[in-house]
Amino acid sequence: MNMVQNDRLIQVRTEMSRLGLDALIVRTEDPHCSEYPAEHWKFREYLSGFNGSAGVLVITKQHIGLWVDSRYYIQAEKQTRGISIEVFKDGMPGVPSYIDWLTYTLPSDSTCGIDGFTVPYAEYLKIEKKLADFGIKMEYVVNIIDELYLARTELPLDEVTEMDFSLNQKTRQEKLAQVREEMLKLNATHYLLSSLDDIAWLTNLRGTDVPYNPVFYAHMIITPTEEHLYINPHKLTSIISKRLDEDGIKVSLYDHFEKNVSNLPAGARVLYDPNKINARIVKALRDDTVKVEAPSVVEALKAVKTENEIKHITAAHVKDGVAIVNFLHWLQWAYATEELTELSVADKLLEFRKQQEGFLCESFGAISAFGENAASCHYAPTIETNTRIGDGFLLMDTGGQYVGGTTDITRTIAMGAIKDKQACVDYTLVLKGHIAVSRAIFPEGTHGSQLDTLARVFMWQNQIDFGHGTGHGVGFNLNVHEGPQRISKKDNGSEIKAGYVTTDEPGIYREGKWGVRIENVVVCKEVGQSEFGRFLGFYPITMCPIDKRPIVVEMLTQEEKEWLNDYHSIVYETLSPLVSEDVREWLKGATEAI
Amino acid sequence: MNMVQNDRLIQVRTEMSRLGLDALIVRTEDPHCSEYPAEHWKFREYLSGFNGSAGVLVITKQHIGLWVDSRYYIQAEKQTRGISIEVFKDGMPGVPSYIDWLTYTLPSDSTCGIDGFTVPYAEYLKIEKKLADFGIKMEYVVNIIDELYLARTELPLDEVTEMDFSLNQKTRQEKLAQVREEMLKLNATHYLLSSLDDIAWLTNLRGTDVPYNPVFYAHMIITPTEEHLYINPHKLTSIISKRLDEDGIKVSLYDHFEKNVSNLPAGARVLYDPNKINARIVKALRDDTVKVEAPSVVEALKAVKTENEIKHITAAHVKDGVAIVNFLHWLQWAYATEELTELSVADKLLEFRKQQEGFLCESFGAISAFGENAASCHYAPTIETNTRIGDGFLLMDTGGQYVGGTTDITRTIAMGAIKDKQACVDYTLVLKGHIAVSRAIFPEGTHGSQLDTLARVFMWQNQIDFGHGTGHGVGFNLNVHEGPQRISKKDNGSEIKAGYVTTDEPGIYREGKWGVRIENVVVCKEVGQSEFGRFLGFYPITMCPIDKRPIVVEMLTQEEKEWLNDYHSIVYETLSPLVSEDVREWLKGATEAI
Repeated sequence: MNMVQNDRLIQVRTEMSRLGLDALIVRTEDPHCSEYPAEHWKFREYLSGFNGSAGVLVITKQHIGLWVDSRYYIQAEKQTRGISIEVFKDGMPGVPSYIDWLTYTLPSDSTCGIDGFTVPYAEYLKIEKKLADFGIKMEYVVNIIDELYLARTELPLDEVTEMDFSLNQKTRQEKLAQVREEMLKLNATHYLLSSLDDIAWLTNLRGTDVPYNPVFYAHMIITPTEEHLYINPHKLTSIISKRLDEDGIKVSLYDHFEKNVSNLPAGARVLYDPNKINARIVKALRDDTVKVEAPSVVEALKAVKTENEIKHITAAHVKDGVAIVNFLHWLQWAYATEELTELSVADKLLEFRKQQEGFLCESFGAISAFGENAASCHYAPTIETNTRIGDGFLLMDTGGQYVGGTTDITRTIAMGAIKDKQACVDYTLVLKGHIAVSRAIFPEGTHGSQLDTLARVFMWQNQIDFGHGTGHGVGFNLNVHEGPQRISKKDNGSEIKAGYVTTDEPGIYREGKWGVRIENVVVCKEVGQSEFGRFLGFYPITMCPIDKRPIVVEMLTQEEKEWLNDYHSIVYETLSPLVSEDVREWLKGATEAI
Repeated sequence: MNMVQNDRLIQVRTEMSRLGLDALIVRTEDPHCSEYPAEHWKFREYLSGFNGSAGVLVITKQHIGLWVDSRYYIQAEKQTRGISIEVFKDGMPGVPSYIDWLTYTLPSDSTCGIDGFTVPYAEYLKIEKKLADFGIKMEYVVNIIDELYLARTELPLDEVTEMDFSLNQKTRQEKLAQVREEMLKLNATHYLLSSLDDIAWLTNLRGTDVPYNPVFYAHMIITPTEEHLYINPHKLTSIISKRLDEDGIKVSLYDHFEKNVSNLPAGARVLYDPNKINARIVKALRDDTVKVEAPSVVEALKAVKTENEIKHITAAHVKDGVAIVNFLHWLQWAYATEELTELSVADKLLEFRKQQEGFLCESFGAISAFGENAASCHYAPTIETNTRIGDGFLLMDTGGQYVGGTTDITRTIAMGAIKDKQACVDYTLVLKGHIAVSRAIFPEGTHGSQLDTLARVFMWQNQIDFGHGTGHGVGFNLNVHEGPQRISKKDNGSEIKAGYVTTDEPGIYREGKWGVRIENVVVCKEVGQSEFGRFLGFYPITMCPIDKRPIVVEMLTQEEKEWLNDYHSIVYETLSPLVSEDVREWLKGATEAI
């Protein structure tokens, strides 16, 4: 296998030298800046053998580097063994970014190539500016992938489907009217849209082009009077084609998007989100058009769920809760009687989910991590790593796509006795952080990064921290990760608004020991108004008990105990009528007040 | 007086039309982006009559608008009465920014002028970009101030002084070596420096050109081998001239800075902080130079106080503490026996400060606010507003410049009985916020905005908030506001580092009722290291009791009481040997454990 990679890398270098490139950057994204690209776009994996979901490969005449984040430190080393690829561990002290590394490695007057389709425009500008400072030119029309990746999987031709009308979403035309209102404010004549979940939301269509995310490959151009959907027409049934036509949405060929962008008229004021559109498309704009850059208008509209959407999302979470509670009840029993592994319990949970009406598929690859495996916070079990479950913490981070919503839940379950006191202290610190975010009241305008502190402050006092964000937006039967909101250390400029659906998922990870994470999905609503303005708060919609057994009760304040008891009493009220008597008995104990 | 303003505005419009300008923006800054400009630069005040410390005047052919923040809503209305100036209350719902207002008001193809010397380059670019979107051109070479402001105060000719050698600061040459190291990392050949406190720090010189901030008007250009100080030579004594010369610092005329910037050689890589240099200077750069933009290198170095500096700063705070404790003791006695006003107590406090060795002047205009006056969080008493002190809260926010340090302290003092329970609840919420920041432990890399939440979370749960930041950096006998750090809602991209000296000053302001603020200066130090990294914390150096009488003790947790008692015991230990027996007795009671 690595022989194959070595051959491919030789071919790339031949191609680079033909094109006059001294370096080539190979990123992970598809032309839609997606988190999960289709197989068709996996050129980095094709070249390096490394199949992680993030990472950048950089090839120069002398060196090859692969930049990966902490999730992939070990996997990248393993998968590139036998190839002359140096793995750079992004985020480790002293490890240069690939851009800095290029400035150290390349002489000035070099040329560095990148396929402009695979890099968001904002990111491209950063690279270009930095390299220019060192006299290095960028070339973004680079089609090496087409030349070399001959056995490439075709772009998916899966048919798109229309959202169930009974969900009473806003219609396409209503949504487009909202978009046009925003365009007017920004004085924009054309709006370029490439992000797949934004397009799915706007068109009320769904697809199956990539795993977990119910999206389909398409671009859009919206003007004050017209909207064009760039899509492979084979993906559209005649009924959907007709409906789109009735709604005035014009269908064009997917491949014509770039050309049509390059033909926008002089003086056009072209709106796009520089983080959600690829560099090639923006570069295609004529010089006599005006670039209007703003955070995605559609993303901002999509994030504010309507009351109706929240109703359906809540219902999906109840179904999900029934599945998980059935699973937890089973787990307790099965643990005593049969051999369980990370994979077998994940399969079992999926089985319970499949019993729920409206369940479509998982919303991401299940994390089922026992003991020290859970210390890698994005661990997903494979046949090679699959571990037998004994006494200790089992961390399960899973989610489902339902007709009316998307779920995402993490529970850390005490299997047998938890003997290490520190494990229980960690568990309780995570719970305190979870509760602090969940019961927070905050003024309108508060950014996620301001709330992130609440999840960490108790840990920090004990010199503990965790390396991931505290929360992300969740779609309405759409991507399990959606923006603009994030609850994380780093401010991304986005406030938490009423109607947002977000996760609350702090954790603690002790290498070689255990991992703890507790995650609910919460809805943001107005709590009240005072002379100091309007205040918002969170309401959990995930319906599942939080394991009480590992809690160090003395570490909780009265308010925290009340929160937990209130939450558990809602969980019991909601789920008990929907489960069997056995499960109800179990649920009663699991949700009893502490 | 308003006749005068009207005349001046007519003259400005004549001048504008001569220059072909449809609009003119008149800002508050001097060419050094200073918080407090010298009289010489107060063109906005000259034109409008409004003398607040912040605000933007915009003049078009038809309209005149004055944009002020919440501190100046009332004052601006009052001072512009009788002139056709519309006051825009920045931050009020529906009030457009002056830039947006210009896009509404001016037809496309208009030209808007601004004196490029009075606007930071980064801000200028924002204005230029926004107006360009609406077809409005900018003109930044606009010298109307020189033409019209005939009775203008000259730039100050005050002599600069050298920092006391006994303070054992790093030498100029040591500091310049640090700067050059950073220039090397940024690959810069020239570094443009205009911010006055940065220049004062780097040169170990101090001045008296503006009130409160011990700075002097100068610019600098630093290259890998040379440093040029642009300053009026009359400000330099022969001894200082000689010392600068010995240290290799070349002195050039203040007025030659722009010209010399415009003469930097082709290919020069010119470093500057776009927020701390004016637009004219950056525009003066030749097109064949390379702009290297980065947050101020000197500011970043200056903010990390050396152990030696911290020693002197701590000593200055002890002196300041003695003065305030003497004052508080006096205040209690005087309240019972004489008539007190906001101004009279502020004068008295200054008197006590003047008794301290090494005291130079106040570090900002004293805030002494009784009762509802304190609800305006930047209220400074004047002869017109001066209020007699009765029963209620007296908020005093004051500070001193000392030879070895700068202080900034706020205490809210219960005068007589505080009858309103809510006032005491507010006081206690502020105290809880103050303590939460002060005792916070946090990982290296944490930004001030992440810590800001700790000051507010208890208030937020009660739907209360405050409109200013929680903390700012404090200089070493320099500006009482210095960067890069800020503890505030808005992330400014700057982390809190060991060695930083910062304030901790949450507040609650009830219009028409009272204002509460409690402020200490804290030093950031390492607390420890764990498997999760390095953790930092704060240590208060302000030495003064926090009034215990308004505390609602039941609202404090055990940890909060312990913090307060520990702090008070340090205050007593530190100050009791330095005050008279009477004061010591009082201090004993004021610092007794709760």
